[in-house]
Amino acid sequence: MLPTIEWRDDAIVMVDQRKLPKQERYVKCRTGAQVVRAIKTMVIRGAPAIGVAAAMGLAMGVVRSKAKGTTQLAAEFYKLCDLMAGTRPTAVNLFWAIDRMKQVFAAAVRAGHSVEEVAARLRHEAQVIHDEDVESCRTMGSYGASVVPDKARVLTHCNAGALATAGYGTALGVIRRAVEEGKRVAVFAGETRPFLQGARLTAWELVRDGIDTTVITDSMAGSLMRDGQIDLVIVGADRIAANGDVANKIGTYSVAVLARAHDLLFYVAAPTSTIDLATPDGAHIPIEERDAREVTHLGASQLAPDGAGIRNPAFDVTPSQYVSAIITERGVCRPPYADSLREVVAGALSEVSR
Amino acid sequence: MLPTIEWRDDAIVMVDQRKLPKQERYVKCRTGAQVVRAIKTMVIRGAPAIGVAAAMGLAMGVVRSKAKGTTQLAAEFYKLCDLMAGTRPTAVNLFWAIDRMKQVFAAAVRAGHSVEEVAARLRHEAQVIHDEDVESCRTMGSYGASVVPDKARVLTHCNAGALATAGYGTALGVIRRAVEEGKRVAVFAGETRPFLQGARLTAWELVRDGIDTTVITDSMAGSLMRDGQIDLVIVGADRIAANGDVANKIGTYSVAVLARAHDLLFYVAAPTSTIDLATPDGAHIPIEERDAREVTHLGASQLAPDGAGIRNPAFDVTPSQYVSAIITERGVCRPPYADSLREVVAGALSEVSR
Repeated sequence: MLPTIEWRDDAIVMVDQRKLPKQERYVKCRTGAQVVRAIKTMVIRGAPAIGVAAAMGLAMGVVRSKAKGTTQLAAEFYKLCDLMAGTRPTAVNLFWAIDRMKQVFAAAVRAGHSVEEVAARLRHEAQVIHDEDVESCRTMGSYGASVVPDKARVLTHCNAGALATAGYGTALGVIRRAVEEGKRVAVFAGETRPFLQGARLTAWELVRDGIDTTVITDSMAGSLMRDGQIDLVIVGADRIAANGDVANKIGTYSVAVLARAHDLLFYVAAPTSTIDLATPDGAHIPIEERDAREVTHLGASQLAPDGAGIRNPAFDVTPSQYVSAIITERGVCRPPYADSLREVVAGALSEVSR
Repeated sequence: MLPTIEWRDDAIVMVDQRKLPKQERYVKCRTGAQVVRAIKTMVIRGAPAIGVAAAMGLAMGVVRSKAKGTTQLAAEFYKLCDLMAGTRPTAVNLFWAIDRMKQVFAAAVRAGHSVEEVAARLRHEAQVIHDEDVESCRTMGSYGASVVPDKARVLTHCNAGALATAGYGTALGVIRRAVEEGKRVAVFAGETRPFLQGARLTAWELVRDGIDTTVITDSMAGSLMRDGQIDLVIVGADRIAANGDVANKIGTYSVAVLARAHDLLFYVAAPTSTIDLATPDGAHIPIEERDAREVTHLGASQLAPDGAGIRNPAFDVTPSQYVSAIITERGVCRPPYADSLREVVAGALSEVSR
C-alpha cells in the first residue's frame, strides 16, 4: 500500500507528488500552515486525499496550539479552517472534511474538554477519516469491479489512485480489485496535461503493482477508441453535483464525449464525500484556474512563447447524461442520479440498485 | 515572412523547429543526406514543408554529385530518393515531391543533358516547388477566409502555419488572410502533445504576427467548446484520401468528434499536393509510430515511469463525415469528396463549387 499520507510521530508525512516518478521524496508537515501550503502547491492532490490532508492539518494546528483555553483555541482553529478552505475550490471533499472537523471541535468544546483533550479528539477524528477513506476505496473497488469485464482495456484520466486517496484509490481501486479477482485488465493512462498526473502518478503506482499500463497523450484517446483498443472508461471525481454532473480533472469531459461517440461505457468512481447535494448541477461548481506556468513551462523548459495567452482551468464538468454509473462505497448509482445520489448519501442504495 | 526553408549560396537553410520558441537557430544542410536527417529528426516538419525540403534535398544531392555521367548520377539520385522516401511515411507531399523531381530528372537525362545541366534543372524545380507552395498558401488563404466569420474564435491543432510550409501556412494562412481582411480572429492553439507544435510553433508565429493567440492543453478543447468559447475549427492535413478521410497530427480526430458534438464547423486546409487519389480511404494511410521518448521525456525531464508501455502514433485519421469542407489553393471542396477532390486535383473546381 502506498504511503500517500500518514501521521508519524510529530509530523504529517506525505510523498511529494510533484517529484514522482523520478524521485520518491517525503514532505513532513509539522504545522497546520504547512499542510495548507502542501495542498495548495499540490504536494498532495486528489479529492479524497485533499480531504484527509485537510483533516490532519486542522488536527495538527490544534495539537501544536499554545492556546491557554478553548476560546483562544477556537479563534486559531477557525482561522486555520478558513486558510484550509482557501487552498483549492473545486474538490468538495476539502469542505466536507473541514465541516466534519468543525463539528467534532464544536462538540468537544461544548462538552467542556481541555485544549489537550480537544486536540486528541481532532487527531483521532482525522485518523478515522483517513482509515475510512482506505476502507471506502476497498468497498468501492468491490462494487466497481462488477462493471469490469473479465478481459478489459480501461482508459483512465488523471490519477484517481492510491495517491489521490488515503490508499487503494477510487477509479484505480476498481481496477485493482478487478485484477485481484483475476480479471485481465490493461490500463491506458492519459498523461493528463498540464500536471501529468496520469503519466507521473497513475502509471507509477500501477507499474509498481504489476498492472499492465500504457501511457498515452490525452489527444490519443479518440483515435484509440476508434481503432477498438479501449473497452471502457473509469475516472474519479472532484465534486459530483446533486443531478449527477461530475467535476473532474480537465480533459475528462472530452473523454466522456469521445466515449459516447464510440458507444463505450463511462464510469465515475468516488466516495460519497465527493457527492455535494448542496450543488444542484455542474454550472454551480467553482472551477479552479491555476497558474499559467503549469502550461507554459515544464521544469526549466519553456514550451510556449512569451506573448501568448494561456488558459489553465484545472477541472471541467461532465454532464450527467454522459455518465453510465457512479460507483461509491455504498453501491453503484445509476440514472436518474437525482434519486440515486440522494439515496446513497442518506445511507446505502437499496439492494436492487446495487 | 518566416524563413522556414531556403536555398542560400551552397546550403539549404532551415530554422530548427525543435528549438523554437526558446531559440531561433538555423540548420545548414550541404548534402542530400543532411536533408534526409533533418526531415527524420523534425528539424523541419509539416506536410508541405517536408515536400519542399525533400525536393531541395534531392536537388542538393545532384548539385553535390561528383558523378562522371548521368548513368552514375541516376544511380546516386534514385538511391537518395529511396532514403528520402524512408524519412516519414504519412505526409504524402513527401512522395509527391519525390515523384515530381524524379520526372524532371528523367526528362533531363532523356534530353541528353550533362550532369551540371541536370543539377541546374533540379535546383530550379525545387525552387519552383518552394515558390508554388507559398503562392498556393496565399490563394488557399483567400478561398479559406470566406468561411471565417467577421468575428471568430478559431481552434487549431498542431502547426499548419508558415513553419509547416514554405511560408504563410495552410490553416494559419486562412487565419492570416482573414485577419488581413479586417476580421477579428482570436486563435486557440492546442499545444499538441507530444511534440508541442501548437504551443511551440503555432503560438510563436502567430504572436510574431500580432494575432491574438491563446495556448491550451489538448484536453481543454472539449470544455471550451461546451462553454461556447470556440466558433470553428481549422486544421491542416498530412494526407487526404480519395474519399475525403484526413490524416493529420494525432489528436485531430478527437477535436473533430468534439466539434461535431458541439455543432461546430470543422475545416481542413491543405494544398492539392496533400490529396492522394491513389489512397482510397483513411484505413489505407500508413500512420507513423514515433519514438516513445517523445512521450516519456521532455528534454531531460522524465514524465512517465520506466516499465510503462507507451503509444506514440504521430497521426490519426478523421473520417470525411466530420469534415465540413477542404480548403485548397484551387477552391473549397465540399462533400461528396469523392467528386470534389477528383475535380480539384484534375484542375480547379467549377465556379459553383468555389
